[in-house]
Amino acid sequence: MPPPPAFDAVALRRQFPLLANEPALVYLDNAATTHKPLAVLAAERHFYEHANANVHRSAHRLAHAATEAFEGARRTVARFLGAASAAEVVFTRGATEAINLVAQSWARAHLRPGDEIVLSMLEHHANIVPWQLLAAERGLVLRVIGLAADGSLDLDAFHALLGPRTRLVAVTALSNASGVRPPLGQMIAAAQAIGARVLVDAAQAAAHDRLDVSTLGADFLVFSGHKVFGPTGIGVLWAPMAVLDSMPPWQGGGEMIERVSFAGTTFNRPPYRFEAGTPPIAQAVGLAAALDWLAGLDRAALARHEAQLLQRLEQGLAQLRQVHPIASAAGRGPVTSLTFGAVHPFDVAQFLDARDIAVRVGNHCAQPLMEALGVNGTLRISLCAYNTEADVEAVLAALSDTLELLA
Amino acid sequence: MPPPPAFDAVALRRQFPLLANEPALVYLDNAATTHKPLAVLAAERHFYEHANANVHRSAHRLAHAATEAFEGARRTVARFLGAASAAEVVFTRGATEAINLVAQSWARAHLRPGDEIVLSMLEHHANIVPWQLLAAERGLVLRVIGLAADGSLDLDAFHALLGPRTRLVAVTALSNASGVRPPLGQMIAAAQAIGARVLVDAAQAAAHDRLDVSTLGADFLVFSGHKVFGPTGIGVLWAPMAVLDSMPPWQGGGEMIERVSFAGTTFNRPPYRFEAGTPPIAQAVGLAAALDWLAGLDRAALARHEAQLLQRLEQGLAQLRQVHPIASAAGRGPVTSLTFGAVHPFDVAQFLDARDIAVRVGNHCAQPLMEALGVNGTLRISLCAYNTEADVEAVLAALSDTLELLA
Repeated sequence: MPPPPAFDAVALRRQFPLLANEPALVYLDNAATTHKPLAVLAAERHFYEHANANVHRSAHRLAHAATEAFEGARRTVARFLGAASAAEVVFTRGATEAINLVAQSWARAHLRPGDEIVLSMLEHHANIVPWQLLAAERGLVLRVIGLAADGSLDLDAFHALLGPRTRLVAVTALSNASGVRPPLGQMIAAAQAIGARVLVDAAQAAAHDRLDVSTLGADFLVFSGHKVFGPTGIGVLWAPMAVLDSMPPWQGGGEMIERVSFAGTTFNRPPYRFEAGTPPIAQAVGLAAALDWLAGLDRAALARHEAQLLQRLEQGLAQLRQVHPIASAAGRGPVTSLTFGAVHPFDVAQFLDARDIAVRVGNHCAQPLMEALGVNGTLRISLCAYNTEADVEAVLAALSDTLELLA
Repeated sequence: MPPPPAFDAVALRRQFPLLANEPALVYLDNAATTHKPLAVLAAERHFYEHANANVHRSAHRLAHAATEAFEGARRTVARFLGAASAAEVVFTRGATEAINLVAQSWARAHLRPGDEIVLSMLEHHANIVPWQLLAAERGLVLRVIGLAADGSLDLDAFHALLGPRTRLVAVTALSNASGVRPPLGQMIAAAQAIGARVLVDAAQAAAHDRLDVSTLGADFLVFSGHKVFGPTGIGVLWAPMAVLDSMPPWQGGGEMIERVSFAGTTFNRPPYRFEAGTPPIAQAVGLAAALDWLAGLDRAALARHEAQLLQRLEQGLAQLRQVHPIASAAGRGPVTSLTFGAVHPFDVAQFLDARDIAVRVGNHCAQPLMEALGVNGTLRISLCAYNTEADVEAVLAALSDTLELLA
């Protein structure tokens, strides 16, 4: 058998104007946001220069072009997700708003005082705080899956948390802080077996893992454009039509209505029921370009590329005194989070920044995880498709020099 | 005295790539959305190509640049509005979301069953449906200011509606359907005199009128980027800090928290408390470019230009048989909405579209107004800065020909 095709990250990098403008930059903060390929910037620009109009509302040529571009973007997202229909795709501002929409529409309508929501210790604040706000308002109970020693989820604890009042399990597909990938298939099956719904936060996974809702079996899936090579200001909620149909309106305005009268208003069908006001039209077009761009890559080769980069990174880190990764679980995504004993991660990051190596320091919007691990914060290295072996060697060398200096 | 300087709309038009690409297009659907000057497209592009990173979260050079661009955009919006501080500017997806934020945070926290909200018959669905949803949930009462014969608001009725339970008056600054400008100063004074708050929907006004919250005296003001020459996917809620401070969180996620723990979470100060998740960063930068671009025009000359175009349009329309404007009030913005007796507005618009004249037909997200006027819908002509006398003559000639044909 011939060896599998290599993944040419160096060539890929050239498709990103910012990276081309910044040849010395080593950008390892991809879990915070990714850069945008030219295809995305060009698609947005083309929309504004050739098809700009409001959607669904006017009878003229440009309005038709804008509506077709916007609804075409929805079809692209549906195809990317393996959704049964484009109508299952709701455009939001981002993954955070998508989770808030599920909390404030679906959960508010369907959950009763004493009902339970199971979250995990790996969750981003976006998948914690909306549930806390609703729990306080409606007397719901939050249950939290703890960690195993390797940083993965304690699955025995998960199964023990499931019970007759469990209505929802809301879990990340890939931890933004530690890279851990929970075993979604097993968790979804167990939750649905007791009649609970499952929300998958794919904000981090979208840039790395193939998302296929037709086989995943989740009830809700959310992700953000800007973390999957697309624009800011756009995200997606996917849910099966039967679930969307069961959800009352959340925000009111144009688009989401059928008929408005001061005597009484009726509402549009999904997805429009949940898209009050002028949607992020150009951003939807840009997101579709990003997903088409990503779908055009050899995804298996991309997955191998990211796994190889992570492996090399972890091998190199293991050689460095004082470096303590917060998770060692197998099968993690290309994210690692480090502490350095007595040396503060912020100090290390400043030295890296001086060498134009961009990493993130802090709690990564995952304070409960930090607390569970007993750390104040970490230095996070997060990789994506356009990172190269040279990027990994650069950060390893810089960490080695920095720790020698600061130790 | 020398004559006031003329406004060169022909030269202005050249700054808009779509209009330059479409020299034959007569775009008269500006109340639905405006086109974007090159300055806006270039600012967004520059952000993505030179400063793209997530904001407020990382310690590296790009993250600082992105944060500075985003917070700089907030300062620009504050300056545009005459706000006391940039912290009074909350970025939202658009005017619609901004109104929903006021409804679901401020009003839910402060209004009690039986409290009254005064709206007007001129309102866009975005300033009706959020209040209907909340009224149904919380037992609030909506009161509606009706119309005078010339299409303006019936101010006697307004004053009669104010009472001891009035908590909020929510009113447009410029009707998107009829162009009517309610007398905001008088209305705000009367409402505040009885202790009510006032929300001004400036979605339509922003592209035409100088907005100065320091003299207007309103308690909330909202507008959308895409209707003021900026990007889609961005809008603004302005409110004084004391008002924002009194508002509980609405959506949960990153940015809006101070400290997250499963034992209890505390929230960030405004404006961040209301900006859960990664904000529309590039769109904020684009909006700031749009507002700077607009502020750079001679606003007095622009106002005269728009008034002259509207005057010429109305003179021409008055010569056409079968043309019935829905409002004749003085001091209107450059918007007029027409019916044609037995001829359907949709048929007229199709003929206009065949001549590449873009107008809007329908209820303009203002069904209650249409109902009050006894019409099913109208053909709306909406002008803005880049429209020319030639645009007005073109639509007048096309309407004349079309009505002759269809009559």
